[in-house]
Amino acid sequence: MMNIGPYTFDEFASLVESFHGFPAPGVLVGGIMVNLALQNLPEGDLFDAICETPKCLPDAIQLLTPSTVGNGWMRVLNFGRYALTLYEKINGAGVRVFVDPAKLDPWMEIKNWLFKRVPKKEQDSERLRNQIRAAGYGIYGCQPVTIKPGLLKRNSRGSIATCPICKEPYPAADGGICRSCQVHPWSRMDS
Amino acid sequence: MMNIGPYTFDEFASLVESFHGFPAPGVLVGGIMVNLALQNLPEGDLFDAICETPKCLPDAIQLLTPSTVGNGWMRVLNFGRYALTLYEKINGAGVRVFVDPAKLDPWMEIKNWLFKRVPKKEQDSERLRNQIRAAGYGIYGCQPVTIKPGLLKRNSRGSIATCPICKEPYPAADGGICRSCQVHPWSRMDS
Repeated sequence: MMNIGPYTFDEFASLVESFHGFPAPGVLVGGIMVNLALQNLPEGDLFDAICETPKCLPDAIQLLTPSTVGNGWMRVLNFGRYALTLYEKINGAGVRVFVDPAKLDPWMEIKNWLFKRVPKKEQDSERLRNQIRAAGYGIYGCQPVTIKPGLLKRNSRGSIATCPICKEPYPAADGGICRSCQVHPWSRMDS
Repeated sequence: MMNIGPYTFDEFASLVESFHGFPAPGVLVGGIMVNLALQNLPEGDLFDAICETPKCLPDAIQLLTPSTVGNGWMRVLNFGRYALTLYEKINGAGVRVFVDPAKLDPWMEIKNWLFKRVPKKEQDSERLRNQIRAAGYGIYGCQPVTIKPGLLKRNSRGSIATCPICKEPYPAADGGICRSCQVHPWSRMDS
């Protein structure tokens, strides 16, 4: 039986449901990927994470590792690939785990889901989840990687100023006014 | 006494510690901001979230609302401002909560932290946390907003292809090869 971190597969599915809103196949797949990465890394080290898609996978990393968006130990670099890297935060040595399409032929439900060949409504979630569980580590690739030194540095925002337009605090390095005072995603209802 | 969602302030601080790694002042502030937003929105509606900084605040949203990075109900638009918006996902009507520097004078510990006037090592975490708790809703601004229609649409990645270079699945709309096969954040150790 496959465990995911300290959880059974079904326990992890429940955890995903409570955090993510529903037991999304992508987060289940992600849980197995995080597991696989950790098994190929030295125990006890502190790892940062890179996630190559914003879809589902970040939540598996946030649930199973100390890395979150908010603490800055996970970064989403949106390459549109279903892949994650965990790496030692000082020297950058790590492991990248990805879904390997060449290994998907025995698992048509997973393949159809990943390549979006079946409309969501017609997906057999039960069958898909069973295939994800049964496939175990068999559908992934795992490669040793070294993160480039430039990506290891934490970029500090430096000093904080008050924006003369919106009167809110912002990183002074962004310029004379804050970045939002050029591009607003909303229109105020009261002005 | 201030509650944060279903938690007492101290319970929330423990939850933050377990998810975020430490009870960061930014996530505590964020918890109060989420609370304030929800109190100004109709109960029972479904909200999406916009977070204007990747620092700390996203974790408060992920802990206290159904929105996460991975489920796509929270987006980080990095304007470098300590602000969040919760909005009804169909019509875009919502509330934006921000830290208002004009209200910070009675709370020097918070002001020094927010404007990074004191090196982290010299910060009095205990005093800062007590001020955050005691200030309650008193240091924030809250404004009704309407998210522009273009931002309400979910952008689907469309069909998925296999990249001829890395052999991994990627959104076909990205072009003939995947976005990563131009910009690699790592060098492979085995090639």
